[in-house]
Amino acid sequence: MDPKTPMIRRTRVLRWQAGAAPARRADELAAEEPLEIRVDTRPVVVTMRTPGHDVELAAGFLLTEGLIRRRPDVQRVTPHPRNRAGNVLEIFLAPGVSVDFARLTRHVYASSSCGLCGKASIEAVHQQFPKTHSRVKFRAATLLRLPEELRRRQDTFDRTGGLHAAAVFDAAGRLVVLREDIGRHNAVDKVIGHGFLDGLLPFDRHALVVSGRASFEILQKALAARIPVVAAVSAPSSLAVEFARRSGQTLVGFVRGDRMNVYTHAKRIRFEAPAASPFKNLAAL
Amino acid sequence: MDPKTPMIRRTRVLRWQAGAAPARRADELAAEEPLEIRVDTRPVVVTMRTPGHDVELAAGFLLTEGLIRRRPDVQRVTPHPRNRAGNVLEIFLAPGVSVDFARLTRHVYASSSCGLCGKASIEAVHQQFPKTHSRVKFRAATLLRLPEELRRRQDTFDRTGGLHAAAVFDAAGRLVVLREDIGRHNAVDKVIGHGFLDGLLPFDRHALVVSGRASFEILQKALAARIPVVAAVSAPSSLAVEFARRSGQTLVGFVRGDRMNVYTHAKRIRFEAPAASPFKNLAAL
Repeated sequence: MDPKTPMIRRTRVLRWQAGAAPARRADELAAEEPLEIRVDTRPVVVTMRTPGHDVELAAGFLLTEGLIRRRPDVQRVTPHPRNRAGNVLEIFLAPGVSVDFARLTRHVYASSSCGLCGKASIEAVHQQFPKTHSRVKFRAATLLRLPEELRRRQDTFDRTGGLHAAAVFDAAGRLVVLREDIGRHNAVDKVIGHGFLDGLLPFDRHALVVSGRASFEILQKALAARIPVVAAVSAPSSLAVEFARRSGQTLVGFVRGDRMNVYTHAKRIRFEAPAASPFKNLAAL
Repeated sequence: MDPKTPMIRRTRVLRWQAGAAPARRADELAAEEPLEIRVDTRPVVVTMRTPGHDVELAAGFLLTEGLIRRRPDVQRVTPHPRNRAGNVLEIFLAPGVSVDFARLTRHVYASSSCGLCGKASIEAVHQQFPKTHSRVKFRAATLLRLPEELRRRQDTFDRTGGLHAAAVFDAAGRLVVLREDIGRHNAVDKVIGHGFLDGLLPFDRHALVVSGRASFEILQKALAARIPVVAAVSAPSSLAVEFARRSGQTLVGFVRGDRMNVYTHAKRIRFEAPAASPFKNLAAL
C-alpha cells in the first residue's frame, strides 16, 4: 500500500443492531477516485479506481486495449503537473510509436471536459442535480428487511449467480420496481428509467436498494431521480460516502441479517426498538 | 423476463468436485451483450448489459446523466432497423428539446466505430489479439486452492469489504502478482500492467484469478496479456464463456471450497484424484 495514495479511507459510522441503540464507530472504506489517463497529452480515459499502482493501471489499460504492445513503447509516465490530487497521469510514448486511437471502441470517455478530476467533481454534479431535502423517514427495521425482499424476488430470475439487482421501495417497505442486470449501474438505470417512463418520478420518498456495493455512480444516479435513501447489501466506497454527505442522501451499507451501518444523514432513520413479540414475552415469563 | 431477449443463456459445464470424476452438466449463465444507445441518431454510449428492459435502461441512463429531464422530452424509442440482434436503440427527442452532449463527461464511449454491436464483436477482438494455443496444464487441485490464496493475501489490505482482487499465478500455484481495486477491470489492468512494466509478459503459462465474476472484458484483458487460464470465484457471463470458447482460453468459475465449474477448454486441467493421505489410509484399515 502506497502511503501517499492510501487505498483505505477512515470514516465514522452509526452501527445498529436490531434491539440495541445505534452506536458511533470508526470504520474503513475502500478509496474510490477518478484517474484520467492521457497519452501524448491527449485524454483517453477516465476510470473510477482505487488509488495506488496507478502507473501499472495506466500501462495495463493501454496494453489490454491494444494501444501499446512492448515495454519500449512507453518512454515516460508522469503525474500531470497541474493536478495535485495525483488523479491525472500523462504517458509519453517513444518517438516513432503511433497509437491508433480509433481502436478505443469502448471505454473511451469523452474526458476532455472531465470535471471529475478533483474535488470540484462532486460540486459539478450538484450543480446539475441539487441536494435532496426530503423529509421522508424509514423505520430501521423496515430498511433491514429490504435486502431479504430483494433477494427473495430476485431468486425467481437469478439462477445464474451472475446478476445484480436494484429496487425502489416506499417508506412502508412496499416494492415499487426491481430490475436485474449484469452491471450494477445498469440495474439502477433500469429501475429509474421505469419510474421515468411510467411517470413515477421523483422517487423523493423512497429508498434505492442495491444487491452489492455502493459506488459514487450509484449515489449520483439515485440523486438524479431524487432518491433520498440508498441502502447497499455490501460496502460503500469512500467517494459514495463523500457524495452522499454533500448531496443530503442517507447512505446505509452492510444491511445484513439484523445489522446495518449508517454512513450519512441518519436523520431519516427511526431507530425505535421493534415491538416486542408476544411469543417472546411468553417465553420470558 | 422478456422471452425474446432472455436474461439467461444455457450452456454445458464440466462440474468437478475434489476426489470425484468431472461430470457434464447443463448450466445457466447471466446474459451479457452490448447495447448502443443513440440519441437523434448520434451514438452516445455503449454499455455491456443483460438484455431486457432496454428502453428503461436507455431512459434511465439519459436521465441520470442529465440529458433528459421529463417524460415529454422523449418522443420515440425504437430498435435500430439494421441491427437485428436488438443491440442498438434509437431515441428520438421531442422537437425543441436540445441535449447538451458536453454534459456526458463520463461513460461516453467513442462508440461511432463500435465493433461490439453484433456477433462481429468477438471476431474483431481476435483480429487484434490472436487465440491462445498455450499448452500449459494446471492440476485441478492447484486451481482449487488459488482463491483461498487470493483471499488470504487480500486480507492484509482489504479491511473494507469493498475491494476486488486479481492475481496471476504460475502453473505450480505460485503467486506472481496480486492487486486490488474497487473496479474489477482496474485490478486486472494493474496486474497486467505490472507484468508489462517488469518485462514479465507474456503470461502464457499462467492463470488469472479474480475475486468476483468474470465478464467479457476480463477475458479480453487476459487474452491481451496472453493468459490462457482464467478462474473466477463467482459466475462468468454468457459473453465471457462465448469469448473464451473462441479465444482458446480455459474459463473456470465458482471455484469455491472443493468444487469448480469448467466452462471452456478443459484440456488444460488435470483432474487426477489427489494423492491419498496416509492418514486416510490408516483410517480405512
